[in-house]
Amino acid sequence: MRVKLIAVTCPLLEGMHEGSQERLIASAARCCWSSKPIEEIYASMGRERVERFLEKLMKLEHLSPFEHVSLTFYIEGISRVTSHQLVRHRIASYSQQSQRHVKVEEGSFITPPSIRENPEALRVFEEAVESCMKAYRKLVELGVHIEDARYIIPQAVKTNIVVTMNVRELLHFFKLRLAPDAQWEIRMMASEMLKQAAEVLPTVFKPLLERRLKGE
Amino acid sequence: MRVKLIAVTCPLLEGMHEGSQERLIASAARCCWSSKPIEEIYASMGRERVERFLEKLMKLEHLSPFEHVSLTFYIEGISRVTSHQLVRHRIASYSQQSQRHVKVEEGSFITPPSIRENPEALRVFEEAVESCMKAYRKLVELGVHIEDARYIIPQAVKTNIVVTMNVRELLHFFKLRLAPDAQWEIRMMASEMLKQAAEVLPTVFKPLLERRLKGE
Amino acid sequence: MRVKLIAVTCPLLEGMHEGSQERLIASAARCCWSSKPIEEIYASMGRERVERFLEKLMKLEHLSPFEHVSLTFYIEGISRVTSHQLVRHRIASYSQQSQRHVKVEEGSFITPPSIRENPEALRVFEEAVESCMKAYRKLVELGVHIEDARYIIPQAVKTNIVVTMNVRELLHFFKLRLAPDAQWEIRMMASEMLKQAAEVLPTVFKPLLERRLKGE
Amino acid sequence: MRVKLIAVTCPLLEGMHEGSQERLIASAARCCWSSKPIEEIYASMGRERVERFLEKLMKLEHLSPFEHVSLTFYIEGISRVTSHQLVRHRIASYSQQSQRHVKVEEGSFITPPSIRENPEALRVFEEAVESCMKAYRKLVELGVHIEDARYIIPQAVKTNIVVTMNVRELLHFFKLRLAPDAQWEIRMMASEMLKQAAEVLPTVFKPLLERRLKGE
Repeated sequence: MRVKLIAVTCPLLEGMHEGSQERLIASAARCCWSSKPIEEIYASMGRERVERFLEKLMKLEHLSPFEHVSLTFYIEGISRVTSHQLVRHRIASYSQQSQRHVKVEEGSFITPPSIRENPEALRVFEEAVESCMKAYRKLVELGVHIEDARYIIPQAVKTNIVVTMNVRELLHFFKLRLAPDAQWEIRMMASEMLKQAAEVLPTVFKPLLERRLKGE
Repeated sequence: MRVKLIAVTCPLLEGMHEGSQERLIASAARCCWSSKPIEEIYASMGRERVERFLEKLMKLEHLSPFEHVSLTFYIEGISRVTSHQLVRHRIASYSQQSQRHVKVEEGSFITPPSIRENPEALRVFEEAVESCMKAYRKLVELGVHIEDARYIIPQAVKTNIVVTMNVRELLHFFKLRLAPDAQWEIRMMASEMLKQAAEVLPTVFKPLLERRLKGE
Repeated sequence: MRVKLIAVTCPLLEGMHEGSQERLIASAARCCWSSKPIEEIYASMGRERVERFLEKLMKLEHLSPFEHVSLTFYIEGISRVTSHQLVRHRIASYSQQSQRHVKVEEGSFITPPSIRENPEALRVFEEAVESCMKAYRKLVELGVHIEDARYIIPQAVKTNIVVTMNVRELLHFFKLRLAPDAQWEIRMMASEMLKQAAEVLPTVFKPLLERRLKGE
Repeated sequence: MRVKLIAVTCPLLEGMHEGSQERLIASAARCCWSSKPIEEIYASMGRERVERFLEKLMKLEHLSPFEHVSLTFYIEGISRVTSHQLVRHRIASYSQQSQRHVKVEEGSFITPPSIRENPEALRVFEEAVESCMKAYRKLVELGVHIEDARYIIPQAVKTNIVVTMNVRELLHFFKLRLAPDAQWEIRMMASEMLKQAAEVLPTVFKPLLERRLKGE
């Protein structure tokens, strides 16, 4: 699995620098209580004030201003078990690799750790994957279109997906998908997303990350 | 595959009878241009006026009033190939059978018609499915949890899902999923849904159904 | 203000009776953990089991099954102050009376209680409303279209709106709009909606209603 | 009215330059049909290929990849007539100045052109606005909270709002709100938004802009 933050909302206002995403959120929120133009608000908020203000907004669950910033991730090589769970999140945008158009290649499968760690299980798993790949190729040879041949492909098959979520939805997504009872693969993916999100919006995401590292 | 309309929005206004869903949509729309209370509007609109009004709204693409009526379908025995496509529709609600909690049983697989019609392809397909089921059972025997063992299950595996969409979203869904280039299984599913939707809201859905039957 | 529940999702399954909406939610949720068809699940769940199950789902915040049931309210005579707040809820459907097409009539204004209770304030308020109505009529006389003349109409002006929300969104809406710091008019409206919702889905909404009555 | 594009999604991929937003959309779309990593796709698409590809996607109404790019506008000094229409667009994020917390000031009103152009109408309008402002101030003096005093404020009152929409939703928004029968103020606002959007995503928005300029 490879997760990469490939795009983020960037303010076009004077004084852009590190932390400008959080400053944008704070400035948009401040517009609700102020008659000043946003340029002035944005220019006047120092790093510390932004931090304290965002912490307060999160505490009060006044989360709508966090929607003004979106993050786009490229996720390579997750199983379709996991992508099926991922796309259940409806407040998000997806572009996913299509098995109707892209042929499944050798070596395109995720092996769960619980299987990888058990040599007997691993052998059983790999043999079955191999049977399916043989069947897939044979079906295509017999003239079956790949969009039908893929029915034989195990759900472990890898897929690539581009996903865009705003910061508010990411907070919700992380809460659900980093929970101890979440499925291991989506947790691993969410964990990678969180690390990269925390670099751009540390006030918002670092507390979550630290709780993760402490094993909470 | 089995598709069953299991719930629909029902007006609680005086004079409920056949066609009351369409009358509700028409009455809600009429509220935009009227100062009369909705009970009066609802009571005063005859069948024909409702029909002409809905046709006009659809022609003008003034579709928001069609959101007031929702339909809930129970869909049994579609493949996870298809459920993965289905849940990409975000303006909808889903409750799907979980492979983390429900064990995959023998005989739970969809065979695409292009495979079923070709005896050689069918044999290849069925053997590979059988290998996977054996591997699945073996993995479980070896102590692998079913949520990990399912990685070996082919995407042809059946699932059940409850889906709720409002009438506006259904119009969009049918447009996309009944298109000639849509994938065969989701087309079959959408086609069944359309038939049942057309019984409840004939003015809205019968024109689509007739176009389908004419092979357009 | 008048609030009336005018439509609700009704199951089409065997054994419909009081509480069928909650039974539908419970049955849809149960489909996630079961391989049985929904008809069988629905038929087998008694009132008490439904209640306990819904309480558990709410406690675990597993709220997606609550989306399968929607309620439609007709709301007559709220101010546009309040309708502007209402339509900020995005997971909902609205049909609102248009001031571009419906002329504002005499006596179409909401007076806040804090003004009504103060004779001097009431006089000031009513005089200003009357000035505006005179100006509105004069503008129309002078050939100004009502869609422009309405710019002079105070925000206290009444509007009618049809709103559909699913049960999950209603839970969220009530939490926000029944909070002690919510604006009085939308609280009053939400409170009326809650009473009527609690008659259809008592397990879901009565606890909220009881907390309201206790003044929590 | 003042409209300003204050933030936009920016790719973090190698080779950022003008037109990188459109290149991101094209690359995300290409991921659906390719097994190549997005970095490679992004690096390999020249300006012209991006343009032709986006035009094709729009023609085919394959619009989901356009959701990966969002634009945030700061809108200063529109009437609450218009903000009420604006927030009806549900696939968007808003932070709006609150009249519960920000006092209405002198001179904070929009005069429709049809009124401004008619001296008699203008006098009637301004006098009524003045009466309301007097009443507002008097109510506050009498101890009425501004959240209630605002009920007397005409709908012409100005508000500021921060709005974020993705490119797909913007296309829909412009189609509706630039239509000849759209209300003049929201058309003016949409027109300003379109001009600024077209500078960032010319392939997507310039055709709309040119049609506007030709008076279509």
